[in-house]
Amino acid sequence: MNLPRNHASTDTQSSPLQVADRVARVLAETALARDQRGGTPKAERDLLRESGLLTLMIPSELGGLGETWPTTLAVVRRLAQVDGSVAHVFGFQHLLLATLQLFAAAEQWRPLFASTVEKRWFWGNTLNPLDTRTLLTWNPTGDQGAITGDKSFCSGALDSDMLIVSALQSTDKKFLVAAIPTARAGIELHDDWDNIGQRQTDSGSAHFENVQVSRSELLVTPGPLGSTFASLRSGIAQLILSNIYLGIGQGALQAARAFTLEHSKPWAASGVAKASDDPYVLRNYGEIYTELEAARALTDEAALQLQAAWEKGDAITPQERGHVALAIALSKVKTSSAGLETASRVFEVMGARSTVARARLDRFWRNLRVHTLHDPVDYKLRDLGAFALSEQLPVPSFYS
Amino acid sequence: MNLPRNHASTDTQSSPLQVADRVARVLAETALARDQRGGTPKAERDLLRESGLLTLMIPSELGGLGETWPTTLAVVRRLAQVDGSVAHVFGFQHLLLATLQLFAAAEQWRPLFASTVEKRWFWGNTLNPLDTRTLLTWNPTGDQGAITGDKSFCSGALDSDMLIVSALQSTDKKFLVAAIPTARAGIELHDDWDNIGQRQTDSGSAHFENVQVSRSELLVTPGPLGSTFASLRSGIAQLILSNIYLGIGQGALQAARAFTLEHSKPWAASGVAKASDDPYVLRNYGEIYTELEAARALTDEAALQLQAAWEKGDAITPQERGHVALAIALSKVKTSSAGLETASRVFEVMGARSTVARARLDRFWRNLRVHTLHDPVDYKLRDLGAFALSEQLPVPSFYS
Amino acid sequence: MNLPRNHASTDTQSSPLQVADRVARVLAETALARDQRGGTPKAERDLLRESGLLTLMIPSELGGLGETWPTTLAVVRRLAQVDGSVAHVFGFQHLLLATLQLFAAAEQWRPLFASTVEKRWFWGNTLNPLDTRTLLTWNPTGDQGAITGDKSFCSGALDSDMLIVSALQSTDKKFLVAAIPTARAGIELHDDWDNIGQRQTDSGSAHFENVQVSRSELLVTPGPLGSTFASLRSGIAQLILSNIYLGIGQGALQAARAFTLEHSKPWAASGVAKASDDPYVLRNYGEIYTELEAARALTDEAALQLQAAWEKGDAITPQERGHVALAIALSKVKTSSAGLETASRVFEVMGARSTVARARLDRFWRNLRVHTLHDPVDYKLRDLGAFALSEQLPVPSFYS
Amino acid sequence: MNLPRNHASTDTQSSPLQVADRVARVLAETALARDQRGGTPKAERDLLRESGLLTLMIPSELGGLGETWPTTLAVVRRLAQVDGSVAHVFGFQHLLLATLQLFAAAEQWRPLFASTVEKRWFWGNTLNPLDTRTLLTWNPTGDQGAITGDKSFCSGALDSDMLIVSALQSTDKKFLVAAIPTARAGIELHDDWDNIGQRQTDSGSAHFENVQVSRSELLVTPGPLGSTFASLRSGIAQLILSNIYLGIGQGALQAARAFTLEHSKPWAASGVAKASDDPYVLRNYGEIYTELEAARALTDEAALQLQAAWEKGDAITPQERGHVALAIALSKVKTSSAGLETASRVFEVMGARSTVARARLDRFWRNLRVHTLHDPVDYKLRDLGAFALSEQLPVPSFYS
Repeated sequence: MNLPRNHASTDTQSSPLQVADRVARVLAETALARDQRGGTPKAERDLLRESGLLTLMIPSELGGLGETWPTTLAVVRRLAQVDGSVAHVFGFQHLLLATLQLFAAAEQWRPLFASTVEKRWFWGNTLNPLDTRTLLTWNPTGDQGAITGDKSFCSGALDSDMLIVSALQSTDKKFLVAAIPTARAGIELHDDWDNIGQRQTDSGSAHFENVQVSRSELLVTPGPLGSTFASLRSGIAQLILSNIYLGIGQGALQAARAFTLEHSKPWAASGVAKASDDPYVLRNYGEIYTELEAARALTDEAALQLQAAWEKGDAITPQERGHVALAIALSKVKTSSAGLETASRVFEVMGARSTVARARLDRFWRNLRVHTLHDPVDYKLRDLGAFALSEQLPVPSFYS
Repeated sequence: MNLPRNHASTDTQSSPLQVADRVARVLAETALARDQRGGTPKAERDLLRESGLLTLMIPSELGGLGETWPTTLAVVRRLAQVDGSVAHVFGFQHLLLATLQLFAAAEQWRPLFASTVEKRWFWGNTLNPLDTRTLLTWNPTGDQGAITGDKSFCSGALDSDMLIVSALQSTDKKFLVAAIPTARAGIELHDDWDNIGQRQTDSGSAHFENVQVSRSELLVTPGPLGSTFASLRSGIAQLILSNIYLGIGQGALQAARAFTLEHSKPWAASGVAKASDDPYVLRNYGEIYTELEAARALTDEAALQLQAAWEKGDAITPQERGHVALAIALSKVKTSSAGLETASRVFEVMGARSTVARARLDRFWRNLRVHTLHDPVDYKLRDLGAFALSEQLPVPSFYS
Repeated sequence: MNLPRNHASTDTQSSPLQVADRVARVLAETALARDQRGGTPKAERDLLRESGLLTLMIPSELGGLGETWPTTLAVVRRLAQVDGSVAHVFGFQHLLLATLQLFAAAEQWRPLFASTVEKRWFWGNTLNPLDTRTLLTWNPTGDQGAITGDKSFCSGALDSDMLIVSALQSTDKKFLVAAIPTARAGIELHDDWDNIGQRQTDSGSAHFENVQVSRSELLVTPGPLGSTFASLRSGIAQLILSNIYLGIGQGALQAARAFTLEHSKPWAASGVAKASDDPYVLRNYGEIYTELEAARALTDEAALQLQAAWEKGDAITPQERGHVALAIALSKVKTSSAGLETASRVFEVMGARSTVARARLDRFWRNLRVHTLHDPVDYKLRDLGAFALSEQLPVPSFYS
Repeated sequence: MNLPRNHASTDTQSSPLQVADRVARVLAETALARDQRGGTPKAERDLLRESGLLTLMIPSELGGLGETWPTTLAVVRRLAQVDGSVAHVFGFQHLLLATLQLFAAAEQWRPLFASTVEKRWFWGNTLNPLDTRTLLTWNPTGDQGAITGDKSFCSGALDSDMLIVSALQSTDKKFLVAAIPTARAGIELHDDWDNIGQRQTDSGSAHFENVQVSRSELLVTPGPLGSTFASLRSGIAQLILSNIYLGIGQGALQAARAFTLEHSKPWAASGVAKASDDPYVLRNYGEIYTELEAARALTDEAALQLQAAWEKGDAITPQERGHVALAIALSKVKTSSAGLETASRVFEVMGARSTVARARLDRFWRNLRVHTLHDPVDYKLRDLGAFALSEQLPVPSFYS
């Protein structure tokens, strides 16, 4: 698989969004077939490696593209318009790199970033705060640990080069996070993700059997949620999700437009010559578009706020962190509802023939339905309500 | 495949709903596998033949069960809770039998009904008012015609014994309907239905090549929409659809309940021990249930009105016919929206693990999404609005 | 004020609904002026006394009309279409009479019912389970008590002949209910209800100063919620509210129709000659009508279930009682949402000129907005969800 | 009436928003009483004259504040939070000044702007494109015309110093617009606006009797919608409305917060000690807040786009103008729905006691209900749908 002419990695003139657009066009060609097949999108992951986009948020002095969150999230969104799965593992790349920056000291993450650039590492996720089955036990001298246990929802771990892994310290159940090579002995990543949507995210299970971790591989300065700045991680994770939801919703609308214009027939009782003149079809498009645009506006605002917070670094106050979390919660709530509604309603503006299996136009709904269950929207609404009513800020956690 | 003990056809004590319940339990065992596979549900169609339920609406003096529309529609709904496809072709059996009664003279339909009982005929649909590609050309003496052309959306035609077929008279494009054996020479039914939902309805295409039809096989007394009574057909069709939509929605709720109670975990921030104690989970169930019950109440009312209209026969007035059509339109609108909303929202009360492909819990949404596109809800709302505002009654057609 | 010809009280041929319809037409003539004025609808209350409708649920052997809940609730609904306030105090008449039947022995309520017929008593409410400020203190011999304290939301107490009053027993805070004459010394009913809606319900405050109550006036056999049958009271209260909400919503639709047909102009961009031909106007009417009809269907079903439960009397089981409560909860939820939505949306199908103050077309929304706050819909949804998920029945209380 | 200390007109240090905030606090003190009273808010209009805010959009070289649309609209929004009526006539000041800039040559509007600063003119509206009853007839030499006829919806004309007036040229029905002094002979402004909301906007009727207009007072270079730039007027009008809707919605939320925190009691079945801990209360606040914030984000974006278009002046292309119109349409649709929904739902988080008439908490809904009927939201959705589906841009008119 190759990028079209003006290939990203050799075309230093292109902006990240231009490169993303070219990648998206390549992804789109096979997205339907890959949605059906599931499994690891190996060629597409390699295309991302090759594109340079995996280094979007790596500072330029370390060889990365030195971009901002707004741009990075826009790239995630663009990819999600054509391929929710690839957008997901791509988005997690940046979450996992950010995890290094947020939880570890510069001395620790800078070399890892440099290697990410140099070796085109794709990072995978085996951090799951809700899954308490993996334990880390230290050797007698305490410099070397071993992780054993099972883990679920390990998105993008298959075909990754490096992993962010979490485990509970066996003695006190302290939540620990480390960065280790995927190839390390004892790590079994199972090809067992077979779900109704996001089918190429490899969000399956893993087993760790006595996987060795040195103390220096732990992210402990300041560690998970170890500072106000570190607690931005949940916001980054949530905003990556929001952009994926939004992108999928936008992709559904784009697909619907093409279908209505090319294939839809006017309803007999409408009295119009083309489906695109039907007043109800137009109104439905108007409602769908309005809600997607509302979601987009909130999502764009949240990206700007995240970037400002990111640039503050350790100077960020809990108050500022809280407001960023709220802006991101707004985006999360609205992209979830607008995306799902879009992905289901578009069939009503396309008509019965749009349900042929080969068009796989249900994939937008299936992808959103799976991915929006990451954490409950009702609790985001509760957090937003506590602020709207009492100016309470969300309590920092891995989800808020 | 066999019905459980107390098999329907040998158990004359059972009510139709008891038989339907037993059939439903059998269908449920394989519904997931068959949703995946698609194709003709041959064994299940034979089970229906064997169950006696294909004769629900056939008068008892002709050997049928002599039931009413409320009971027949309740059976359709019960089957739809576990299998939208089988419910669809089963529902169409009764629509097609009603078509004979509505469009043809008693001398014509009574022998066909008797044969339907005796030979356990399953009727299939090749009537499509929107598809103008099949033409009927008469021979010089005008007693024998030949149908040639293509047709789409021929639900339940494969594995049927008899067909209701429509064609345009070649000379004047008059819309004609006939009842002919499926096995007649020249009929090709294509196994080409592969859609995202209602996957075992065989709603694919057909080709007619010089298919002979005698004048006596035409339904012309009074013919399609040939009288006020005859124009009840669209209401019957629409109310069968409504009951399928409602049943699918109820099936989604039933599946969700089982999943929540058995598998769902409480969200960490909820502070409750069981997902079933979460105030938001409860409220979501409450909203879903309320809308489904509202749809059910309207649907039950419509069935009673249809039955009253049915019993009036040719004595029915256009005014009465109009009110039945409105009651059915209410049911159609509300089952569409409540069903779709249920089938999508239930995931929010089940959680992320409910999206595993093997559970196929998305089938309720896929089935509803496909089937609710039969005709646009917006035009039903327009009809209802014209009545609510100006007391206008729907103009009789194949859809209203 | 007089009823039109064929006056109810002298026209024994008329059905209750015919009488209600005539009363409604009289009420309609002054409803706008009285909405503006507020205060006690004295003439209208006398009209109800005169109409005989206050005895709808009193058994015919005691001189009443001997009607059923479905008919009584239909009358409430009919009055609510033109006057939410009068419908409210009228509905409470039947709630308070039912309270006697449910909480007291036949020897106690039968004479009160006979007097209600004979003296055309209008009953008023000073029972409020949430207001704990009135205490009843017994004299040393324990046969005579005295009630002292304040009470809020005393709907229909002004101009009433008899009151149902609640108080907490001073010693143990036990909840007591009694039936006493409104004229009894020490009862001050304040004319202080001035709210945005339901402006003639006199739902203001009262003060009780050493009001004497004999033990025989207490309703103690079985007393408040003292049996499964007695606990039907909340259902009756809730279903009266539902019918008022529904009636107000229907009244809003009726007023809107008249306005659209007579006054509304087509929007320039619509390209149609009359507002009633605008496809969006029609669709809006269709949506409004569908939701109101869904609410009506649930409400009609609930009335039938209530009547069946009522006829069971003490034979009713907790299980049966629970199912009635659920049916009524469905009605309550749906009439609340459909009513409010209708009352607000109708302006969109009437246009800007419908907002002139003298038309007072906002009164439907104001009435519903006030009255639907009686108890929170969210908790009804929780109850419905607990049933839909776990088959739990609502715990009997004054609200569920 | 006086502004608090640091009075605007003497405090040149204050930003417009700070001044607006002080004005808003003054308005809030009497907003309830004035909502009840209706009529012309004379003192409040004088306060605005005195505040300097009437010159927000007048270039500083002409003595105005030289502000931008985003700031001006933010001021409109701030005032609308406490007083929808005053915000309305204040917003129209800027619409009418913009009308001069858009429809007339600089030589014509610059002196009028200078006088507006110097004489603290408040401009009033008697332009109504849908009202065709006023005709302008020229004298034989064609230099002097006379306007005669009636006009409705003349917001802010009473107590104004200058009017923008429209009339149809008697010969050819050409739509003409002029700027004339309110005091000119023959102009009768009727104090006949008595509507359910926006009660102090004086949006009543006017009569013109042979009102003299010189040709030089007509706005003809380029005239109404006479150029792409001139056609921005509808966008400005619509975005002023949007900001009023949004401000009213935000005001409703602010009032609700204060009420819930101070007065609301927890529902018995909630099991919580304070209403502000009720999970459903919080979720309701969260939903309300999310929709308002979505509306705000779109509205803020639209203001930036309007400003960019404004700065382009005659260089603006139809394409650019179309995109601004779409951004504003998004804002209009979303502020309408979010505002109305907020203003009605807030009662559910406040409870029954919030409906006392003296609190007039229904005024937010009444104001929005009246004002959102300015032009139908359905046609905005149609325009948005035509773009979303076919990339059609809205056809310039006085409403799109």
